[in-house]
Amino acid sequence: MSSINEIEDMDKLRGLSWMVALSQGLGITMVVLMGVWLNTYMGGFAWDGSGKEFNLHPLCMICGMVFLYGEAALVYRVFRQTEKLRAKIIHGSLLLLAFVAVVVGLVAVFQFHNHAHITNMYSLHSWCGMTTVILFCLQFLIGFLSFLLPGARPSIRKFYLPIHQFFGGAILILALVSVISGFDEKLIFKLKGSGYSKLPPTAVIANVCGLVSIAFVLTILFIIQKSDWRRKSSEEEENLSIHFRALSQGSDTE
Amino acid sequence: MSSINEIEDMDKLRGLSWMVALSQGLGITMVVLMGVWLNTYMGGFAWDGSGKEFNLHPLCMICGMVFLYGEAALVYRVFRQTEKLRAKIIHGSLLLLAFVAVVVGLVAVFQFHNHAHITNMYSLHSWCGMTTVILFCLQFLIGFLSFLLPGARPSIRKFYLPIHQFFGGAILILALVSVISGFDEKLIFKLKGSGYSKLPPTAVIANVCGLVSIAFVLTILFIIQKSDWRRKSSEEEENLSIHFRALSQGSDTE
Repeated sequence: MSSINEIEDMDKLRGLSWMVALSQGLGITMVVLMGVWLNTYMGGFAWDGSGKEFNLHPLCMICGMVFLYGEAALVYRVFRQTEKLRAKIIHGSLLLLAFVAVVVGLVAVFQFHNHAHITNMYSLHSWCGMTTVILFCLQFLIGFLSFLLPGARPSIRKFYLPIHQFFGGAILILALVSVISGFDEKLIFKLKGSGYSKLPPTAVIANVCGLVSIAFVLTILFIIQKSDWRRKSSEEEENLSIHFRALSQGSDTE
Repeated sequence: MSSINEIEDMDKLRGLSWMVALSQGLGITMVVLMGVWLNTYMGGFAWDGSGKEFNLHPLCMICGMVFLYGEAALVYRVFRQTEKLRAKIIHGSLLLLAFVAVVVGLVAVFQFHNHAHITNMYSLHSWCGMTTVILFCLQFLIGFLSFLLPGARPSIRKFYLPIHQFFGGAILILALVSVISGFDEKLIFKLKGSGYSKLPPTAVIANVCGLVSIAFVLTILFIIQKSDWRRKSSEEEENLSIHFRALSQGSDTE
């Protein structure tokens, strides 16, 4: 593993730690603000079909589709010397946690709507959100089959990697779009008429949480798009991978 | 200029034309849907402080901050053999047009609010939108000073270019967030109560226009992030630029 250390140009990594620290500060602030907003200003949480069950929807979606998803995106930038397979497992596990949060968040909003006889899936927020979740599930499944399960051809992995990386960012952008439109929608419904325009504390906290989410997502996107900060694949690892493939298939045709 | 043609790896450009064509199709569909929605289903346009003046706000913002801005982002990918300075002027001119549209769009919404005694700048949509516009103006100004005006040191240009490129994408993402939350907000205000949930044609067209905007922005982001599709700076042009700098300053210390 020492060869990886040697080829890593430490100069180019200047700034990465600071940006990761910034992202963590923003991410934690975002989740805390969301928790405080829902718990103190929106009535708290329950699992009874009421507005308290609805409150689990924004909490789970921001924890899953934004915070945990963003953390998963950073894995290959942060765990630079960790064995590749181990990094993949951390990446996949964080996304699995995100998936669980998303399922709970979706069940909460559908149960709340059905209980209160509110139509499902009519607003642009819901259309964006559902598009985000469907793309996330597809990306999760195809990513798992291509990168984590052994057996995918290196040529397929090489072809799919940039697509996986682009859609990784795109899904985070879609999640942000859904979060911001969701905040706006909820505040208009909750504070009715001119209530929102008087900017009571509940509106200010939600608006600030929205801006912090934007800053968190942009920080994550900045870190993952910067080519100097990409994890370098060591020749050692690549050779091992080809060797493993040759052993497991009895030939090395790709 | 023939040397630029020679070094361009045509193989790598496969797909760029198709993606640009797709982006143009999506962009035009987005603007047409927005126009039809506002003209046919939202009462049309006027400059009288009424809801018809408000309608100029979404039209100008989507034309300026999404369509023209997106077109400006593509200039260096599309005009690959055009002289660099000429490409810069096209890029800057499209952004200037976008800026004019943004100013008209902002005046329209503030005049409408003031006329109807509606508070300005309280919703998360307005906070996001204003952040987008401020960042856009800063980026436009710093970009102009750094890249279009002669005199900026090559070292400063080199340092600022990746920042300019990142914020270019970030501002487009922010514009998208503002557009989607704006649609959602307007539909809830306009269709009140359960009107939106019955999905009348006005809601369907706006929701579809929202999804098309998302597809347009993601297509633009895909094109500009793909390193194979970046315009290669010819050594010839770079040498000319250094030569010009040396001549104009009497020395070449950088």
